[in-house]
Amino acid sequence: MTQAPILVITTGGTIDKQYFDALSEYQIVESVIGKLLATARVAHPFRVVELLRKDSLELTDEDRALIAATVAGAPESHVVITHGTDTMTDTAAVLAPIAGKTVVMCGAMQPARFAESDAAFNLGMAFGCCQSAAPGIWITMSGTVFDALKVCKDREAGKFVAR
Amino acid sequence: MTQAPILVITTGGTIDKQYFDALSEYQIVESVIGKLLATARVAHPFRVVELLRKDSLELTDEDRALIAATVAGAPESHVVITHGTDTMTDTAAVLAPIAGKTVVMCGAMQPARFAESDAAFNLGMAFGCCQSAAPGIWITMSGTVFDALKVCKDREAGKFVAR
Amino acid sequence: MTQAPILVITTGGTIDKQYFDALSEYQIVESVIGKLLATARVAHPFRVVELLRKDSLELTDEDRALIAATVAGAPESHVVITHGTDTMTDTAAVLAPIAGKTVVMCGAMQPARFAESDAAFNLGMAFGCCQSAAPGIWITMSGTVFDALKVCKDREAGKFVAR
Amino acid sequence: MTQAPILVITTGGTIDKQYFDALSEYQIVESVIGKLLATARVAHPFRVVELLRKDSLELTDEDRALIAATVAGAPESHVVITHGTDTMTDTAAVLAPIAGKTVVMCGAMQPARFAESDAAFNLGMAFGCCQSAAPGIWITMSGTVFDALKVCKDREAGKFVAR
Repeated sequence: MTQAPILVITTGGTIDKQYFDALSEYQIVESVIGKLLATARVAHPFRVVELLRKDSLELTDEDRALIAATVAGAPESHVVITHGTDTMTDTAAVLAPIAGKTVVMCGAMQPARFAESDAAFNLGMAFGCCQSAAPGIWITMSGTVFDALKVCKDREAGKFVAR
Repeated sequence: MTQAPILVITTGGTIDKQYFDALSEYQIVESVIGKLLATARVAHPFRVVELLRKDSLELTDEDRALIAATVAGAPESHVVITHGTDTMTDTAAVLAPIAGKTVVMCGAMQPARFAESDAAFNLGMAFGCCQSAAPGIWITMSGTVFDALKVCKDREAGKFVAR
Repeated sequence: MTQAPILVITTGGTIDKQYFDALSEYQIVESVIGKLLATARVAHPFRVVELLRKDSLELTDEDRALIAATVAGAPESHVVITHGTDTMTDTAAVLAPIAGKTVVMCGAMQPARFAESDAAFNLGMAFGCCQSAAPGIWITMSGTVFDALKVCKDREAGKFVAR
Repeated sequence: MTQAPILVITTGGTIDKQYFDALSEYQIVESVIGKLLATARVAHPFRVVELLRKDSLELTDEDRALIAATVAGAPESHVVITHGTDTMTDTAAVLAPIAGKTVVMCGAMQPARFAESDAAFNLGMAFGCCQSAAPGIWITMSGTVFDALKVCKDREAGKFVAR
């Protein structure tokens, strides 16, 4: 319940996908997270770092090491990470050794630019969890706060489930 | 971090306001909370009770007693309450004696039916906080998880601030 | 079907209503028309004049004279006017004597700032009609291009109907 | 300016694209046109025929013949066709011989399911043009009513331009 500042790290994923007519395809572009936080009228102190712009299927070991180093090296002890959903748990495993920080990962099944997206709700869950939960790695998707090491994505069902 | 079901109680407030052309004014209508949870693809077990449809300035002592009785009498130990922002803290004070439950109140500064509203994010925060925080009464507004007994609304600034 | 520039005059009305929490009411604010045209990727030459910011029930004879003078004095022969729906036809009657210009009036039953509003469609109709119709005063509401002197608003039904 | 009913034929295109997380890609799905018309509170008589669900780059000669036959055989003399933008003008050329009907084609550069899309405006333009223009084939894109045989898409610039 602290007013301690929150570090928001964006890494890409569906949440930041935009559609490009000239290409007839989507691409991950500049993050929409700042706009989501403005629309939500967030007055809580926070800092956004756009670290990567990748589909999570394309994240490398080096990328995950960079994310971990950014979390570990940041002055903030409360961290929210937006991330593609397909390998979110893989990155969580790499973050697990980090002690003393509450890290919450989230993403979206529908791009935030859609009229009907789960992005704002999921990001809100991450902000709520981040300030309330014990240190550790959490994932806020599908309406649930999951232990990030005990969850998996059910790709067919389009949701995260405890395992 | 339990998968324990969440009780969502709606009481009205700006979050559920709709515009009526024939009246040239806003009115609180059937709650949009169910739609927000569907858009957020919430798979977590929850139950919605539409208890009241009032601007929070019009809530009576009887209304607050009803809200408290509903929370206290519910089988769920995790509760989210959507509420008008102007007297949210008054209702929180009435709920304070309830022991052993994590109750999170939220609302919105812009109706959820607006294209740019803080509703989905605030409701997401409440879901995240509700599953992570210790028993007590919390308010998730303006991006912060507040102790509901130590916060007030700054009407001019349009945000909640710790006091 | 000319590429002749379009003059867009905004006068207020529901289409431009915004909700203000601090007042617990809506007010007509800076017009959202420019944003609607940008979202619609309008490349056609146009010019926006924010002439009035009034609920159409509050428009005076002087206001209508001002609107008529603005239309008559403009270099553009194709004009779109956004206007509150309650007295749109009264203003149309004042504009009727203007010869040689295609003037299309429209508004919205739901504020453009709502996620589900008729604003963008109605404005699109006005742009389409304005470039296709003969000189005269037209109203594009409820999906129909009406002769502005042969239509009335059915307030109960929430739509415009030919009379 | 008739109240004559409008036939709306949907053929697919970007306007009806939806994002599928399980596939990490967009696909054209059930048309959103009915929802757009409902949101626009269209009271004008219309009928929607979902004829095809294709990216316009995949339309065959047989598809275009089917579209032309549907237009020619319909009882309605006012027709709106939603269509992918890349080959809209090719289909227009096939429709050109149809006499005595006002046919308006439109589409979108951003899927209608996005919060910020040109879909509703373009569809509104088509409805407005369809009721106002002389018989012939028109395209309503980029804010302009174009003669469908004298326009091309500038893919790089993301807009339609007269030629």
